Amino acid sequence: MARRNYIFSTIRSVFARYGFQQIETPSMELMSTLMGKYGEEGDKLLFRIQNSGEKANEAPEKGLRYDLTVPFARYIVQHREELQFPFRRFQIQPVWRADRPQKGRYREFYQCDVDIIGTDSLVSELELIQIVEDVYKAFGIRVCLHINNRKILAGIAEVIGAPDKITDITVAIDKLDKIGLENVNKELVERGLSEDAIAKLQPILHLSGSNEDKLAAISYMLTDNETGTKGVEELREIFSLIEKQQLSAINYELDLTLARGLNYYTGAIFEVKALDVQIGSITGGGRYDNLTGIFGLPNVSGVGISFGADRIYDVLTELNLYPESMLDSTQILFAAFGDAELRYALGWAKELREQGVRVEVYPEPAKMKKQMAYADAKAIPFVAIVGGNEMESETVMLKNMHTGEQSQVNINTLKQLLS
Amino acid sequence: MARRNYIFSTIRSVFARYGFQQIETPSMELMSTLMGKYGEEGDKLLFRIQNSGEKANEAPEKGLRYDLTVPFARYIVQHREELQFPFRRFQIQPVWRADRPQKGRYREFYQCDVDIIGTDSLVSELELIQIVEDVYKAFGIRVCLHINNRKILAGIAEVIGAPDKITDITVAIDKLDKIGLENVNKELVERGLSEDAIAKLQPILHLSGSNEDKLAAISYMLTDNETGTKGVEELREIFSLIEKQQLSAINYELDLTLARGLNYYTGAIFEVKALDVQIGSITGGGRYDNLTGIFGLPNVSGVGISFGADRIYDVLTELNLYPESMLDSTQILFAAFGDAELRYALGWAKELREQGVRVEVYPEPAKMKKQMAYADAKAIPFVAIVGGNEMESETVMLKNMHTGEQSQVNINTLKQLLS
Repeated sequence: MARRNYIFSTIRSVFARYGFQQIETPSMELMSTLMGKYGEEGDKLLFRIQNSGEKANEAPEKGLRYDLTVPFARYIVQHREELQFPFRRFQIQPVWRADRPQKGRYREFYQCDVDIIGTDSLVSELELIQIVEDVYKAFGIRVCLHINNRKILAGIAEVIGAPDKITDITVAIDKLDKIGLENVNKELVERGLSEDAIAKLQPILHLSGSNEDKLAAISYMLTDNETGTKGVEELREIFSLIEKQQLSAINYELDLTLARGLNYYTGAIFEVKALDVQIGSITGGGRYDNLTGIFGLPNVSGVGISFGADRIYDVLTELNLYPESMLDSTQILFAAFGDAELRYALGWAKELREQGVRVEVYPEPAKMKKQMAYADAKAIPFVAIVGGNEMESETVMLKNMHTGEQSQVNINTLKQLLS
Repeated sequence: MARRNYIFSTIRSVFARYGFQQIETPSMELMSTLMGKYGEEGDKLLFRIQNSGEKANEAPEKGLRYDLTVPFARYIVQHREELQFPFRRFQIQPVWRADRPQKGRYREFYQCDVDIIGTDSLVSELELIQIVEDVYKAFGIRVCLHINNRKILAGIAEVIGAPDKITDITVAIDKLDKIGLENVNKELVERGLSEDAIAKLQPILHLSGSNEDKLAAISYMLTDNETGTKGVEELREIFSLIEKQQLSAINYELDLTLARGLNYYTGAIFEVKALDVQIGSITGGGRYDNLTGIFGLPNVSGVGISFGADRIYDVLTELNLYPESMLDSTQILFAAFGDAELRYALGWAKELREQGVRVEVYPEPAKMKKQMAYADAKAIPFVAIVGGNEMESETVMLKNMHTGEQSQVNINTLKQLLS
């Protein structure tokens, strides 16, 4: 929990600098809001709620939220008269899925979404990229931002004469590194692409060089395609904004294999990967043009990303990047030999707490062995032992639990040591 | 949300100084864990969960947690081998009740509980009182802590020969101020107390003076009663600990009318009331000796309190005590006349954010009127307007949205103003 609090408070403080407002929506939504939004498989993973005292059919049926996106869309439509657009919100709440529990899959887990709704300005894409940079800089995690654009993928599919094969094409390109060009082309045949289409796709499969080089090649290929050219222009603009802003901590890379949420995104697509840990995407998102359409409010453009708190947790753990001070763990335990000593310790504890030190006082004058075992089990780094001598000399016997060293110290020394 | 975050983070930072560990339990518990724990009425207010894809009876039925106490008791029993006792935990999570929604009553609301389990030392009571003092000092809310002890109430009931009438006695005493002595005595008759019992109760109804005076009188009355004398000793000890610790910010008062959770608490009972707002209890709790008994782990003594976040929210609002800086709201909006100006603004925004300033950039060069209306509606205190002149002179036109004043400022002036 201390680690999760650290993750959320770090992310939250970055969001605040960009003027995002936190919202929460109720855990329960009407089943009619949830059903049909996550595919057939998703419908099966919804948790339904029944009011224990109510008879069935007395109230409209509800379910637990499955993600933050659908409740957010419902929220925007419902509050559209009160909200200021462009509306900037973030949301950190648990979601529930009736998956069979297994390693890395929980029935209840947190999502952390940030979105800008009601503008198609690419400045919004830039700001989300800046947020990604700021968040991972704050964590100390080196990342690469993969960028793609749905319009480019659509353009490519169109110019090779296979407009309905976008997914097949991206899946095939994605395997290039693993299975080689020949096998990719074989797979494209299997996936129903014509020889002509595959031939036209070859330049894309040979793309290399810098982001600018790749973009130039794609631009050339898509010259006569309106959608594709629009996608190229959007990416050029985003790259130019990134350069103008001198975002130094982030690597970004045009990645045509990136197709997440393809049916959903309409412009930029983002994915962030940690450079030093193999764990897949730790943040992802993109531009969508019709989030609220299903709830009767069409043509509202937005762009959003989602931070994967569980994976960030794993990366921070693997790279050992949690700052000690952030973990809110107890810094010192007072262990007293008797009742008078315990009272004496309480006074010291109060003084230290006033300085912000995290202090525990063992609440009984139990056997010293028991009190030390408690400190040990909780990995408390210092124990202040109080006996009659210490009371008399207004000191405590400070034990460093790592080294085993002991020394008699006064309150000022202790304050300096722990503050 | 910003206000609620302020409340929770303030409370959390106090808990941390006392070495409490935050835990979260899953939203769903087995129905068998929940049923029968909250009385007949409570059972009816439980939300049952049904897995959408599962057939009924395939898995044990679950429900949403109704409070934090029962899941916590289940948690302790389940993890008793791994936990270090005395176990100090706090928990801030939503709970669900199938109440008819109405003003001040929600079907989903947060509870914030802090407990020390596995010791009967009164130092734990002291620490919770210290936490109450620290929390309300941090909020700037003046409070009075009402203290009672279940053993004293039991003792009184025993010595007047009506051991089963504890609740009736406390209810009657509670009405003394409102209906007067005569009516209280009349009500005690109606509640089935004998004339002899009522006569013996009269000294209690005439209690007055300082906490020490009251305690002396009660002590005298309970001299021959073991339970009652134990209760008096406990309170004396707690008062002595409070005095020794020189808790200055808190008023505390022995209050024999305090009987919350009477069937549950076995020792000290606490309730905190705000002095400057009429709103009832904003924090309450007490000592219990058998929290985990129903789950098969008897005789585990603990003491805990619960902070009423919703009421604290109302008190802070009524007394206007939210610190501006804590609300995370946007400090300045950049409003640009054109695309070049927008890019220029993005650079300034980046510099300010690096200083921790909360900045928004209106993402399009929309009509100035529209951009100003946005700032106005969001109550953003400053707007930095950027036109060609400003770009040339490396300034912005800063508008104070309260006063309407405008002045041309450079980046350093702006940093000083907003940091």
